[in-house]
Amino acid sequence: MDYEIFELGNVALQSGLTLTGAKLAYKTYGALSPARDNVIVMPTYYGGQHSDSERMMGAGRALDPARYFIVVPNMFGNGLSSSPSNTPPPLDRAAFPNVSIYDNVICQHRLLTEHLGIERIRLVVGFSMGALQAYQWGALYSGMIDAIAPICGAARCAPHNFLFLEGVKAALLADAAFNDGWYDAPPVKGLRAFGRVYAGWVFSQDFFREQEYRKLGLASVEDVARFMEGNFRRRDANDLLAMLWTWQHADLSANPICKGDFAAALKAIRSRAIVMPCATDLYFRVDDNAIEVQHMPNAELRPIPSIWGHVAGGGNNPADNAFIDAALSELLAG
Amino acid sequence: MDYEIFELGNVALQSGLTLTGAKLAYKTYGALSPARDNVIVMPTYYGGQHSDSERMMGAGRALDPARYFIVVPNMFGNGLSSSPSNTPPPLDRAAFPNVSIYDNVICQHRLLTEHLGIERIRLVVGFSMGALQAYQWGALYSGMIDAIAPICGAARCAPHNFLFLEGVKAALLADAAFNDGWYDAPPVKGLRAFGRVYAGWVFSQDFFREQEYRKLGLASVEDVARFMEGNFRRRDANDLLAMLWTWQHADLSANPICKGDFAAALKAIRSRAIVMPCATDLYFRVDDNAIEVQHMPNAELRPIPSIWGHVAGGGNNPADNAFIDAALSELLAG
Repeated sequence: MDYEIFELGNVALQSGLTLTGAKLAYKTYGALSPARDNVIVMPTYYGGQHSDSERMMGAGRALDPARYFIVVPNMFGNGLSSSPSNTPPPLDRAAFPNVSIYDNVICQHRLLTEHLGIERIRLVVGFSMGALQAYQWGALYSGMIDAIAPICGAARCAPHNFLFLEGVKAALLADAAFNDGWYDAPPVKGLRAFGRVYAGWVFSQDFFREQEYRKLGLASVEDVARFMEGNFRRRDANDLLAMLWTWQHADLSANPICKGDFAAALKAIRSRAIVMPCATDLYFRVDDNAIEVQHMPNAELRPIPSIWGHVAGGGNNPADNAFIDAALSELLAG
Repeated sequence: MDYEIFELGNVALQSGLTLTGAKLAYKTYGALSPARDNVIVMPTYYGGQHSDSERMMGAGRALDPARYFIVVPNMFGNGLSSSPSNTPPPLDRAAFPNVSIYDNVICQHRLLTEHLGIERIRLVVGFSMGALQAYQWGALYSGMIDAIAPICGAARCAPHNFLFLEGVKAALLADAAFNDGWYDAPPVKGLRAFGRVYAGWVFSQDFFREQEYRKLGLASVEDVARFMEGNFRRRDANDLLAMLWTWQHADLSANPICKGDFAAALKAIRSRAIVMPCATDLYFRVDDNAIEVQHMPNAELRPIPSIWGHVAGGGNNPADNAFIDAALSELLAG
């Protein structure tokens, strides 16, 4: 086990249910400076765990553990923090409650303040669902955050994004072995279908015409499909659906503090922000970010010029990493 | 029964198999002029039948049955022409052979020449898979065709388009009730998943943000998903997979005449052409058509400026219909 657990106790969720004995799994990289002023928070993305986020860190890069104290909290449902797959009855498996982005960020804030004793954050950075969380951190806690960097994400789930997720969900649910979530053996056919549908969305159309997948060591379109099947088959089906619910219902303003006022919630993000969609992302769209940035007082829209689609923000393509690192370095330079 | 059947006899397919007692279902609209010089051919699209193509016809429109003799041949696999669902054993259901775009067009050409006695065609127009067939008509029979109008289609299936279809197929196959194609009752769960995945692809992202679905009498994103579920649930699962195979393997040059030379096959389309992708189509992309048009000696690329995505070419949106009709009128005038 290469991570730690913060025992949250009983957490009252937005759904009205209480997640008893809730656990927040996290990992820290680097050392907290004596002045406690070198903190970066990097929430995880859909299907990802803290180890996956390490692709964006490294010596000499913007997120350099030699300079910064990087905290990676695992999102609820990802199999390490409280999730359908690791929660005891009666909240196990299909009975696991719905958890919102707000619920996640409230608990992460407790980790930082109560547990790690941190009062100042240099940067909250996140890719994809990590970006949803970065936005939420900004709306709730701007007073303690210098900057946020949402990468290939948004302040809420757009209608088409919701529909794309309906599709991947339906592919999984079509497998009777899923058994409404009360399976004993994994619904492998459904998980593979989930991955194969997802494969069409996660890169751009041009990525395939230009055979960019070769840079990932994949030789064909079928290789990409199988890679994505494997990527999701290793996860628990209920865990995937728990995170999917969180994603579909993401809305920066859907909480008691922002009170449903989306524009006001964006306006509350006073921290400096560089919002980085990918120009060819098929579900987190530049246009949606452009609308959001209009309401943010200290934000810049800086699309990643890449044909890697959503994956451009995931740390797999050196050219995209260089673009992102440059922006993160700007934000960290102050 | 509002259509006629042309008995093709035994058809030797590209796959090497012979489709015995093959049937080509077709419908004609309007009257053939005494000079036999007012013929339009309009092949069907994926999941569509001749009646669905009627949306693009009408009094006062470009495709006006009062002026033109419009022949709509049904694609193999669409449930009316020879298909898994209507072919007797031993070629029924999952045993139905793979049929190519080339196979379809060869048989349609026989319908026009042998059966209807037509030697001159003013226009071959098709939407989506109908466009694949229009391209193939142009490459094989330019000498008898004045113009072609491929709408939201292409000369071959692009790699990403192939992958998107892998996703919808996987969603259907995840339902064990499909039983490798030997079901007695329809695999309803799989068909609905198929439709729900498809729903994410068929319109653009902006279509949903702008709530354009209201113009179709649909009130929500969920309504769109259910509409698409219903659209495919009414079809036979093996039929859908037969047409999907045809689509995935579409390549204008993959036949004994064009001999695998894609550029040469495009060059063989000497008929005048206006190629109309939709600017926001998620799988038949403007960029792919742009590459194709460079090789076509008498072609113009004219993207439909619409946020309806692929559906822009399907006859459902009056603004898009007007744009397309103007181009078709030009071709028919010229």
